[in-house]
Amino acid sequence: MSELRQNLATKEWYIIATERAKRPMDFNLDDKKREQQEYSTECPFCPGNESLTREHTHEIKMNGKWVVRSVPNKYSALQPEGNRERVDKGVYRKMQGVGYHEVIIESDLHNDNYYKMPVEHIENIIRLYIHRYREFISDEKVEDVIIFKNYGSSAGSSMAHPHSQIIATPIVPTPTRSILESAKRYYDDHGRCAYCQMISEELHEKTRVVTSNEEFVVFCPYASGTPFETWIVPRTHRADFCDIPEDEIHGLAAIMKDIFSRYYYGLEDPDFNFVIKTPPRDESNDRSFHWYIQVFPKITKIAGFELGSGMYINVTIPEENAEFLRAIDIKNIKE
Amino acid sequence: MSELRQNLATKEWYIIATERAKRPMDFNLDDKKREQQEYSTECPFCPGNESLTREHTHEIKMNGKWVVRSVPNKYSALQPEGNRERVDKGVYRKMQGVGYHEVIIESDLHNDNYYKMPVEHIENIIRLYIHRYREFISDEKVEDVIIFKNYGSSAGSSMAHPHSQIIATPIVPTPTRSILESAKRYYDDHGRCAYCQMISEELHEKTRVVTSNEEFVVFCPYASGTPFETWIVPRTHRADFCDIPEDEIHGLAAIMKDIFSRYYYGLEDPDFNFVIKTPPRDESNDRSFHWYIQVFPKITKIAGFELGSGMYINVTIPEENAEFLRAIDIKNIKE
Repeated sequence: MSELRQNLATKEWYIIATERAKRPMDFNLDDKKREQQEYSTECPFCPGNESLTREHTHEIKMNGKWVVRSVPNKYSALQPEGNRERVDKGVYRKMQGVGYHEVIIESDLHNDNYYKMPVEHIENIIRLYIHRYREFISDEKVEDVIIFKNYGSSAGSSMAHPHSQIIATPIVPTPTRSILESAKRYYDDHGRCAYCQMISEELHEKTRVVTSNEEFVVFCPYASGTPFETWIVPRTHRADFCDIPEDEIHGLAAIMKDIFSRYYYGLEDPDFNFVIKTPPRDESNDRSFHWYIQVFPKITKIAGFELGSGMYINVTIPEENAEFLRAIDIKNIKE
Repeated sequence: MSELRQNLATKEWYIIATERAKRPMDFNLDDKKREQQEYSTECPFCPGNESLTREHTHEIKMNGKWVVRSVPNKYSALQPEGNRERVDKGVYRKMQGVGYHEVIIESDLHNDNYYKMPVEHIENIIRLYIHRYREFISDEKVEDVIIFKNYGSSAGSSMAHPHSQIIATPIVPTPTRSILESAKRYYDDHGRCAYCQMISEELHEKTRVVTSNEEFVVFCPYASGTPFETWIVPRTHRADFCDIPEDEIHGLAAIMKDIFSRYYYGLEDPDFNFVIKTPPRDESNDRSFHWYIQVFPKITKIAGFELGSGMYINVTIPEENAEFLRAIDIKNIKE
C-alpha cells in the first residue's frame, strides 16, 4: 500500500508508491509514434486483451464494442481502501495513500491520435473524464482530481496506446493552494476572475491567440515557462471542469483536435503533457478560479535552475509561438 | 535583452530569454561520460580555448594555471545592464531581465568528475561559488542567487566539461516565498528551525542517513519526491550558504566527494541536478531557514501529474535508498 508523507519544513505532501516502479515499458514507444500498427498483440489496452488490465470501471460503446474505457491503473499510485488519518511518526507526518488512479484508454486503435480522431470520438473521451471525475469526487475522502496526459516517453509515458490518466488525491497539493490564493487575491483586488480578464485581454490583443471557436479560446500565455505552451480556456466562467454543460463538449473536442493537429503537423509530433486545471472539491463554485487545460510540449528539459527556484526560463517568445501555430493550415494538410 | 513576465493569475514570474535557444550542444555528451578525454580541442571550457568564452570574472590558480574559473554565460538568461522597474503592459506586468548568469568551470580537465577530484580541488569550487555569490548579492538589484549543477543531458546539460551555474535574479521566485513562509510558521509553532529539527531526527533515527562528517549530514529526506534524492545539510544552523566559515569548507568538499562517489559507483554514473538552497538577500539572517544542497538524480521523468499538481510520486522508499547508498564501500572501490 502506498503512503503520503509530508515534508516538515515545506509542508508539501509526497506520494511514496513503490508499486509503480514495477510497471513495464512498452519498448515500441521510441519508434516514431505514427508508424505503429492499429493493433498490437501484447498491448493490454488493445481490444481482445482486456484480461491484461484490471476490470474496467466505465466504458462507452459504439455498435456493441467499446471505443473508450477506464480501468484502475495496474501500477497504482493510490488505492481506494484506507483512510485519511494523519499519523505522526517522530517529528514527521504521514497518511495512507488513499484515493484513485485510473487509466483512460482513449481509443480502441493502438495508433490512434487526437489529430486524426473524429471530433465525436474526442467528445467521448471528455464524457469519460467527466464520468470518472464525478464518481471520484463523490467519495468524501477525495479532495482533488487531476486529469492529465503523458504523450511520448520523454513526457513520462510508458505505454504507446493512446491513454490519459486520472489521479484523485486525499489532500490538496500545496502548490494548488498557492494558485487558488493568488486567484482569490486578484478577485479581491479587481472584482473579476483573473482568467476571464486574461481571455478578454487575449481576444483584444490577438497576438497570442492560436485558435478559437464559439466556446473556447487557445492562446500562448503572456508569461509562460515552456516553449509552445498553450492554454485551452472556456470563454464562459466556470470554476469546475466537471460542470461543463453537455452542449459545450463538442466545442471542447473540436478545439482539442484543432490544437493537437497544430502541434502534430507544426512541431513534428512532439511529446507533450497536458493537465486539466480544476479546483479542489471545496472550491468548485469559486468565482475567482476558472478551469482550463494547460498543454506543455516537451521541447526543453527541466533542469537544476527550475528544480531549485521553481522559476522557468523560456527560450522562445510566446507571441512568436502563437504566430507559428496559428499559421499552420490544418484543414489543407495531406498526410 | 531578456525580460521577466508575470502571470496575472498565479503571480509567478517567468524568464523569457531567447538567446539561450542558440546555445550549441556538445555532441560528445551522450557518450558515457567517463570515457571522455582529459582535453577536447573544441571545448570552450578547456585550457587554451579561453577565447571561446566571455572574459572570466574570477579564477583560482595553482602553479600559475587556473584550476577553476567563472565566466559569464554566453547564452545568458539575464544580463547585468538594466533596471528592475515593473512595466504594465495592458493587464500584464513585465520587467527587464536584469541579473547575472555565470558558468563555473569546475576543472581544467575535460573529463574530471567529483568522485575523482581531490577534496582540495572541490574546496576551490566552493570558494568560487562563495566569491561569485557575494559579488552578485552586493548588487542592490539582485534579490536571490541560485547555484546549481546540471550533470548529463537528461538533466538539461548541454556541455560535457564539468561545470555548474549561478543565476542571480531580480525577484524572489514565488515558490521560494512559499518555502520561507512555511519554515517561518514552523519556527513560530515550535521555536526551532525545521531543518535543525530534521537533522536531530535523522541522526537519532539513523535509517535515512547516508553519510556524515563533523560538519555535515547527508540523508534521504523522509518525504522526498525523487528516487535517491539526498540533502547535504550543515549541522550548524546558518541561513545563508555564503556565511559558511572557511573552516567548514573542507568538510563540505569532503562530503560532496563522498556522496557523489556513492552516486557514481552505486547508480552507475547517473545524470543529476543539484541546487544550493539558500534564502534571498533579505532573509539571510533568518532563524527559520537553514541552507542545504538538494541533489536529484535523474532516474524518473517529471510528467503530467507532477506538472499539473506540483506534487511528486516517488516510486522508491527513502529508507531503502539510504540503505543502498550507505552500503557502497567507496573507500575500497578500484576502477
